Amino acid sequence: MAKAKVAVNGYGTIGKRVADAVRAQDDMEVVGISKTKPNYEAAVAHQMGYDIYCPAENIGAFEKAGMPAAGSIEEMLEKSDLVVDCTPGGVGEKNKPMYEKIGLKAIWQGGESHPIAGFSFNAASNYEEAVGRDLTRVVSCNTTGLCRVITPIDRKLGIKKVRAAITRRAVDPNDIKKGPVNAIVLHPVKIPSHHGPDVQSVLSHINITTTALVVPTTLMHLHTVNMDVNTDCTAEDVKEIFSSQSRIRFIGDGITSTAEIIEVARDIGRPRNDMWENCVWTESITVTEKEIYFFMAIHQESITIPENVDAIRAMMELESDGMKSIEKTNKSLGM
Amino acid sequence: MAKAKVAVNGYGTIGKRVADAVRAQDDMEVVGISKTKPNYEAAVAHQMGYDIYCPAENIGAFEKAGMPAAGSIEEMLEKSDLVVDCTPGGVGEKNKPMYEKIGLKAIWQGGESHPIAGFSFNAASNYEEAVGRDLTRVVSCNTTGLCRVITPIDRKLGIKKVRAAITRRAVDPNDIKKGPVNAIVLHPVKIPSHHGPDVQSVLSHINITTTALVVPTTLMHLHTVNMDVNTDCTAEDVKEIFSSQSRIRFIGDGITSTAEIIEVARDIGRPRNDMWENCVWTESITVTEKEIYFFMAIHQESITIPENVDAIRAMMELESDGMKSIEKTNKSLGM
Repeated sequence: MAKAKVAVNGYGTIGKRVADAVRAQDDMEVVGISKTKPNYEAAVAHQMGYDIYCPAENIGAFEKAGMPAAGSIEEMLEKSDLVVDCTPGGVGEKNKPMYEKIGLKAIWQGGESHPIAGFSFNAASNYEEAVGRDLTRVVSCNTTGLCRVITPIDRKLGIKKVRAAITRRAVDPNDIKKGPVNAIVLHPVKIPSHHGPDVQSVLSHINITTTALVVPTTLMHLHTVNMDVNTDCTAEDVKEIFSSQSRIRFIGDGITSTAEIIEVARDIGRPRNDMWENCVWTESITVTEKEIYFFMAIHQESITIPENVDAIRAMMELESDGMKSIEKTNKSLGM
Repeated sequence: MAKAKVAVNGYGTIGKRVADAVRAQDDMEVVGISKTKPNYEAAVAHQMGYDIYCPAENIGAFEKAGMPAAGSIEEMLEKSDLVVDCTPGGVGEKNKPMYEKIGLKAIWQGGESHPIAGFSFNAASNYEEAVGRDLTRVVSCNTTGLCRVITPIDRKLGIKKVRAAITRRAVDPNDIKKGPVNAIVLHPVKIPSHHGPDVQSVLSHINITTTALVVPTTLMHLHTVNMDVNTDCTAEDVKEIFSSQSRIRFIGDGITSTAEIIEVARDIGRPRNDMWENCVWTESITVTEKEIYFFMAIHQESITIPENVDAIRAMMELESDGMKSIEKTNKSLGM
């Protein structure tokens, strides 16, 4: 089977990781990545051997900066079977006509809203529905994290209600412009936060309320999750359900923080210290009267990356079985 | 009526605020404050005209540092009717025999455990039970904050269950030794945190589960509170209940963070930018199917201060009506 030709439009936090992850697969390849300006991230992409495409008017600037572009963004798209749009939230919407014009399959990220594709994706929840699709939205990091724990619990125990208090990292590690530096910020003040409805864009039958705070840290988000379920169960049952999920990682060994999880990612040689799995603290799993509690950490920069790979595989009909795609993606990334 | 003579044993974050608050009352006075060493806080206390008492063996050191002590801690206690123990958590326990020996009434802070006094205090919840008592423990900042919102809701609507996700400030603003600087720390990993059981030390009939995280900020704690109640109600009903509580302050006007609340405290001239009230975001109050949600911020350094004053007033039988004591304390502090 010919490899799927993938364009990565936008090469920031998500785009660079999607490009590397696609490169690691044997059934797909990166046609190129796009960058608007020849900045330090473009320089690294050039060093890593990616073909860089840019807006036609900036080709001279890239030439001058010593990282000649392979062509315009339109040229990149024309060579491709599918584009993964990793541009900043809201920009993806503007790119849609360009993809439609050349009949290109397209994946957007969670920064865009559900209607852009009419279908929101999480590998563990609805892989099969993505098979052969032209347009898909991979939900955001927090929503991905929630879907990964909600789906298996719902299938085994039946979920009545989910309540999740999300404590968000303020900015990504490379962001030098924003804060907060010393405050807890309600984001938003109104309840629920957008994450609950966003989970429902994947799992429409789930009753969920989420709240969100922003705190001065860059490493990971932290979810305090509470679920009312229909079936009597123990903490051991919940652990068993989670242990069947290859993208849920148990945290123990005295780790009490996001900083120590990232140190583990560094120690085990993960690229960019990425932690693709939901990190659930085993000891935090608590059950009282059909009510489950646990803490989980979500690495905002990387958790949706395997989902993007799976979405490509489904849309390109390279694999019809979600479990097999998840396994293949995990293995190729070294998970 | 003679003023109650109050010793403040320990002059750190809580002790200095208790001393100032007692000083602001017309029915009680500060006999003195205790300090172990002549550090910068002792120097300020000396400037502010407090009589400083210290361990007998350190009297020379205070003399030498230009802030002569008025005597030993035992001498301070012997001149007093009541001691407010504001020593670090765990030290108060060791001081108990010294207080008992001279038959002194004593108040401890939330850093000690409930059995030290056999009675845990919150003015809005159980003032009347403190009247005439010899030993009382004023519960910690987070527990005080929770009791202040739980009691009025429980009295009006009946509480079935409380769930509170507490996001804690890492350290107080003057702490230069500890962190975290860039991490979210589970504190503890196990669920529930100690706050739930601590609320039950005041309100034994309340079904409550709490969780706690520590984040890199110094200003305030932030509670995401969820309550199942027995009675149908609206967000307006909850607001009305809260507005009847003088120690609940509504937050609005576009404020979305703890930093802006502290800026308000600075702007309105609060001593040390203290915010003695629970700060509840009006817009966050949400009710769906007998389930209430809201965000509240708790100023860890100051929220228990009015409660200490009320506890003194009850124990010394200066006022038998809790509402009247609360009103008197609030007015004297300028709340």
